[in-house]
Amino acid sequence: MRCLVTGGAGFIGSNLVDGLLTDGHDVVVYDNLSTGQERFLDEASLSPRFSLVHGDTLDLGALSSAMAGADFVFHLAANADVRFGTEHPRKDLEQNTIATFNVLEAMRATGTKRIAFSSTGSVYGEPDLFPTPEHVPFPPQTSLYGASKLACEGMIQAYCEGFGFQSYIFRFVSILGERYTHGHVFDFYRSLRANPTELRVLGDGHQRKSYLYVQDCIDAILKVVEESKGIERPGGGALHIYNLGTDEYCEVNDSIGWITDHLGLAPNLIYSGGERGWIGDSPFIFLDCRKIRSLGWAPRLTIREGIIRTLEYLRSNPWVLEARG
Amino acid sequence: MRCLVTGGAGFIGSNLVDGLLTDGHDVVVYDNLSTGQERFLDEASLSPRFSLVHGDTLDLGALSSAMAGADFVFHLAANADVRFGTEHPRKDLEQNTIATFNVLEAMRATGTKRIAFSSTGSVYGEPDLFPTPEHVPFPPQTSLYGASKLACEGMIQAYCEGFGFQSYIFRFVSILGERYTHGHVFDFYRSLRANPTELRVLGDGHQRKSYLYVQDCIDAILKVVEESKGIERPGGGALHIYNLGTDEYCEVNDSIGWITDHLGLAPNLIYSGGERGWIGDSPFIFLDCRKIRSLGWAPRLTIREGIIRTLEYLRSNPWVLEARG
Repeated sequence: MRCLVTGGAGFIGSNLVDGLLTDGHDVVVYDNLSTGQERFLDEASLSPRFSLVHGDTLDLGALSSAMAGADFVFHLAANADVRFGTEHPRKDLEQNTIATFNVLEAMRATGTKRIAFSSTGSVYGEPDLFPTPEHVPFPPQTSLYGASKLACEGMIQAYCEGFGFQSYIFRFVSILGERYTHGHVFDFYRSLRANPTELRVLGDGHQRKSYLYVQDCIDAILKVVEESKGIERPGGGALHIYNLGTDEYCEVNDSIGWITDHLGLAPNLIYSGGERGWIGDSPFIFLDCRKIRSLGWAPRLTIREGIIRTLEYLRSNPWVLEARG
Repeated sequence: MRCLVTGGAGFIGSNLVDGLLTDGHDVVVYDNLSTGQERFLDEASLSPRFSLVHGDTLDLGALSSAMAGADFVFHLAANADVRFGTEHPRKDLEQNTIATFNVLEAMRATGTKRIAFSSTGSVYGEPDLFPTPEHVPFPPQTSLYGASKLACEGMIQAYCEGFGFQSYIFRFVSILGERYTHGHVFDFYRSLRANPTELRVLGDGHQRKSYLYVQDCIDAILKVVEESKGIERPGGGALHIYNLGTDEYCEVNDSIGWITDHLGLAPNLIYSGGERGWIGDSPFIFLDCRKIRSLGWAPRLTIREGIIRTLEYLRSNPWVLEARG
C-alpha cells in the first residue's frame, strides 16, 4: 500500500519507514525537519519506493498534496516533549491538536480512510490501577502533552464515527533504541560525557517507568495494521486502541545503575528531589499490554537491554548528541 | 467577586449572569453576539455591577483585556450545536478547543486562577453504564462536539496541575427553559407553528434523553462555586467534575406527546428512522448525578415541566424563533 508517514524523519518515524519499505510498501515521508534528521532516512532514500516531502503539518494545503493517493496515514509528527509543556503551552496545542486536525481534514479531502496514531500512556494521567489497561476510568489529565494527545484521540475517534475512518491508536510508554534523540538516557549520557563525575537527576530517582525498544514498537504497529486489514468493513468506521509497552517497569535509579555500570562510571548523584521529575511528570507509568500481546506480539528486548542498546547507539553516533536544536 | 462570563449573552450564560448579579457579584460579559442576544441582558444591564464587552474568544488580546481584574471565569462561550459537527469540523476545533485554550492563556496572563466550564454528557460517547457516573471507563468519542469538549476538559485539567488553577467542570445534559434558542423543543415548536398538521422527527423517536431546567442548572453551578470557595488551597490546583442533570430520562416520543398535548395539536409524525437522530447522536443519555446531589442540590422541575416551561417561553417570545441566524 501507499503510506504517508508524518514525522517520518524522526526517531520512531524513520524506524517505521524502514519497516514499511522492507514490507514492500510505498512510503511518502512528510516532515518539517524541526527535530527529524534527514540522515535517519539515508537507507530509506536508496529505495525507489521512498520519497520525502519537506512540509509542516500546520500547512493543510501542502499536507493534502503530499497525501494524495495514500491508502494509509501513519501520523507520528508531534511535539513529543512532555517535560517542557508549561513553558510553551501553545506548542502542544499547535503541533499536536491542530496538526492532527489538519491530518484528519487532509484525509477527508483526499479520501484516505485509514490512520495509525502515536498516542501516549500519559493520557492516563496518574491512574489508580497498575498495570493500566486501555479502559481505565476516565482519567484527569496532568500534563499539557497528555491533554493534547487526548484531544487528538478524541478527534480521531469522532472522525471514525462521522466519516467512516478506520483508526489505530497506540498509547506508547517511552520508546528507546536506534535514532533516539530525547529522553532520560540521552540526557544522562550527554551529561556524563561532559562530566563523568556528577549526574543531576530530576526528582528523587524513585519514579517508576516503563520503556519499549523501538524495533519492538514498530513490529507491534505493523502487526496490528497488517492483521486488521482483512477484517475491516470497507466503508465502515472502526476504532482500535492498544497500549504498547513491556510487562515490566524500572526505577529511574535502576536505569542510572545500568547506564553508569555499562559506561564504567561512578558519578556523584545529585537529586532535585520530589516524587515527580517535573510538573506533569507521572511518578508511575506501567501499562497493561495484554490486548496487543493477544495478537501474538511480544517485545524481544527487556528494558535493561533497550537502555544498553540506546547507549551503544549514542556512543556510535555522537553527532546525534549535537544535532538537537 | 468579579466574574467574567464568556458567552454571557447566550441561553445559559445570560441566566447565569442574572444569578451572579442577584448574589451580589460584579459581572463582565464577553460575547461575540453570534448566537447570543443583547435582549437577554436587558435586565442585567440595569445593574451598575454589570458590563458587556463585545469580543470573540479567538481574539486573545481582547479577551485578556476584558479579563483583567477578574477573580473567576465562567467559560460558557462555545459552538453548542452537536448536530451539525460533520458539516463543519473546524467550528468545534476553533470555537471550543482553541477558544478554551485562549481563555486559559488569558487567565495565565491576568493571574486569574478559578474557572467554571460548561462541558457535556456527550463526552461519554455511547457508554455501557446508565445512569453514567463521572468516572466511567475511558469513553471513545462519537461526535466532533463531544471530542472538542473533551479536549477542553483535558487542557483545563492540565492547567490545574501545571499552573495551580482551580477548575469546576460541569457535564450537562441538554438544558431547557427561558431564553432557550436551540434544541428539539425549539425545532418542534417552530415546525408546528409553520405547519400544525405534520412533524418530522429525526431518528425513530425512541432515543432516550435527559434534560435539565436552566434555573436548576444555574443553581447547581452557583452552589458548587460558593461552597468550594472556603475549602480551596490558596495557591494549589484543584479539579472538580460534576455531572448535571435530572434523575430521569424520556423518549423523544414522550417529549413529542407532551408538546403536542400542551399545544392542543395532533400532527402526523414522520420519522427519518434509525436509532440515532444524526451522525454522532447518542441514542441514550442519562447521567448519574449523585455527586452534585450530595451537596444538597436537587432540580425543582421534572423534564416534563421543563419542556412545558420552555414551550411557554417560546410562545411568549416569538422573536426568539426568528432571531436565530
